[in-house]
Amino acid sequence: MSFTFDPRDPVALTQALIRCPSVTPEEGGALHLLAEILQARGFETHLVSFSDEDTPDVANLYAHVGPAHRPALMFAGHTDVVPPGDEARWSRGPFSGDIVNGELYGRGAVDMKGGVAASVSASLRHLEEHPDDPIAFLITGDEEGPAINGTVKLLDWAVAKGDRIGHCVLGEPTNPAKLGDMVKIGRRGSLSGTITVYGKQGHVAYPHLATNPVPQMVRLLAGLMADELDHGSAHFDASNLEVVSIDVGNKATNVIPGEARAIFNIRFNDHWNREKLEVWVRGKLDGAAGNDIVYALEFGRSSSEAFFTPPGAFVDAVVSSIEAETGRKPALSTSGGTSDARFIKNICPVVEFGLVGKTMHQTDERVAIIDLESLARIFQRILGQYFS
Amino acid sequence: MSFTFDPRDPVALTQALIRCPSVTPEEGGALHLLAEILQARGFETHLVSFSDEDTPDVANLYAHVGPAHRPALMFAGHTDVVPPGDEARWSRGPFSGDIVNGELYGRGAVDMKGGVAASVSASLRHLEEHPDDPIAFLITGDEEGPAINGTVKLLDWAVAKGDRIGHCVLGEPTNPAKLGDMVKIGRRGSLSGTITVYGKQGHVAYPHLATNPVPQMVRLLAGLMADELDHGSAHFDASNLEVVSIDVGNKATNVIPGEARAIFNIRFNDHWNREKLEVWVRGKLDGAAGNDIVYALEFGRSSSEAFFTPPGAFVDAVVSSIEAETGRKPALSTSGGTSDARFIKNICPVVEFGLVGKTMHQTDERVAIIDLESLARIFQRILGQYFS
Repeated sequence: MSFTFDPRDPVALTQALIRCPSVTPEEGGALHLLAEILQARGFETHLVSFSDEDTPDVANLYAHVGPAHRPALMFAGHTDVVPPGDEARWSRGPFSGDIVNGELYGRGAVDMKGGVAASVSASLRHLEEHPDDPIAFLITGDEEGPAINGTVKLLDWAVAKGDRIGHCVLGEPTNPAKLGDMVKIGRRGSLSGTITVYGKQGHVAYPHLATNPVPQMVRLLAGLMADELDHGSAHFDASNLEVVSIDVGNKATNVIPGEARAIFNIRFNDHWNREKLEVWVRGKLDGAAGNDIVYALEFGRSSSEAFFTPPGAFVDAVVSSIEAETGRKPALSTSGGTSDARFIKNICPVVEFGLVGKTMHQTDERVAIIDLESLARIFQRILGQYFS
Repeated sequence: MSFTFDPRDPVALTQALIRCPSVTPEEGGALHLLAEILQARGFETHLVSFSDEDTPDVANLYAHVGPAHRPALMFAGHTDVVPPGDEARWSRGPFSGDIVNGELYGRGAVDMKGGVAASVSASLRHLEEHPDDPIAFLITGDEEGPAINGTVKLLDWAVAKGDRIGHCVLGEPTNPAKLGDMVKIGRRGSLSGTITVYGKQGHVAYPHLATNPVPQMVRLLAGLMADELDHGSAHFDASNLEVVSIDVGNKATNVIPGEARAIFNIRFNDHWNREKLEVWVRGKLDGAAGNDIVYALEFGRSSSEAFFTPPGAFVDAVVSSIEAETGRKPALSTSGGTSDARFIKNICPVVEFGLVGKTMHQTDERVAIIDLESLARIFQRILGQYFS
């Protein structure tokens, strides 16, 4: 197998990946390209497609090289991208991979075809000198979509296959402004819930014959939002609750509605878990409800727990590699939203480091050429330290 | 012109009207039937159809008998009815007019074909003895619908025509339990408004980069609902504010929404008018908003002011007629929702008295035969006293 570019060059590889129009759930050729490149260098590659009710089938890639009994360093990521939006507003085509003034343009440049390319390039370079080191890739095509037919199922599949995985680097864009700003060593958990207040519908002119659920909902929410959950922990920001919607849907101004619904989401640190939060929320609502408010509380099924990869040899290898390459000491952060790390942490310690996220999901998403090259060298350093 | 029933019999006339399927905006034959009956007894009748943008054309009836320069007693009402709902749940067909155990069944039996029939029967009887007394009818087909092509336009039309109108009896069902319970001598006003809170959309994981309008809306509404408007007045219940809807419409639990909207309605007594209420509402919201909440407040266009027909000769004639017929002294009330009386009061004093409202708008709407007959006699007594 031969390619028109050198896949050890992260810039050329990022360009090739951007030219694959892999808007979720389309594979767009991106995973096939990676599979061919890795297979040509001795990886065992598996393109695995998953199906589920009410979601499109999605292709995923698992690749592994080296002895299965030695703990591999696994790079995780995704090649699917969010839609480009109005293409006319882009300076360069969102699937062009054009380079202008040292920047490579295209959807996925930083989130995260660039990160995937850097990890592949780094691995190919590392294997040239250390052909026996075990390296794995877990690349999903369903990170930006429903995330049903992606990382979760691919992890189960990989675990069943039996390769040992020691640690994982997830190459999502973690740096707010400059390469080397930030490593993520954990993430807050997330729990959503729905509150429904049951009143009694009636005519606005006869309020004594009705029970308006709206002032009751206002009272419940005021109680729920009155106190902070905590003030943060050693490695985490404070937990935070946001009521993201209230909906009644009553358009008739002469009708007192029968029901009101609110949705909240909590991002929580390692002081909490789902069980403790459920008790806390119910306590706040019961306290506000007294004896006269009838409400139902339902928690969302897809919650995630807070997790944390403690500083130690692995985190040190990542940090010192970043420092050696960029001269910057990255912050060890647990901030931001959730990521696939919340699933990966169930099989091995995981840290996240990638490109600068500023332009992700935006028009003119782009990455500095020198960042792509630096990130590939950082990943190569991590591989070197990990197997030394 | 001859009829298969005697229109001086309010039971037969109510049956005939119920058999006209006049669900708004359909005329269903009801107004034509009334026009024929009144015309046969010497009334000048006008079937007037009104049109407007975005609403169906609706037919209305104005009828007048007697010298135009003498002040007429006007009976007002409507022949349109709300839909019957699931007809299978009715004991008798909603347009059958069947009589079972002394009760006449059908949509509109009490609201208010029965009231219209009683006023027509009473007028025909009165005219047999006093053929020169001026009587008018203002019957709309758009009371239960958008009310755009109904009473308001018909009043303008009648005023332009030039007949003198002295007083009006509106035959809406005013009695909560028994005929003679209640006369309405006024109505509270009604004013609606919409509050929009403008926040800043963002990701739930980065609340410091967003401004959630939901807790702000909760704070505004808590402020708006904190105090009573008043404790009632001599002839009115306390004014009352209801928040009837809050809507955000955000389904994504990981998104802090950018906007929240609430709708409220105020039913107010004669301590207030629209202008004073607007100042009061804005004061409450500004007080709750402080310097950090950005909101917009818009009041509805279709408000109505509180009004009141003071006790005096006309109210006395109504009350004494009810008392003579039923042995009950009716309460003089201003409770309940708005009615077309809010428009009629602009051209003459108006009181409302009709049947027992218990079954209105419900399955098996029905009226006691003896109530229909009593109501016709009450209306006849009112005519007698009015012109004596």
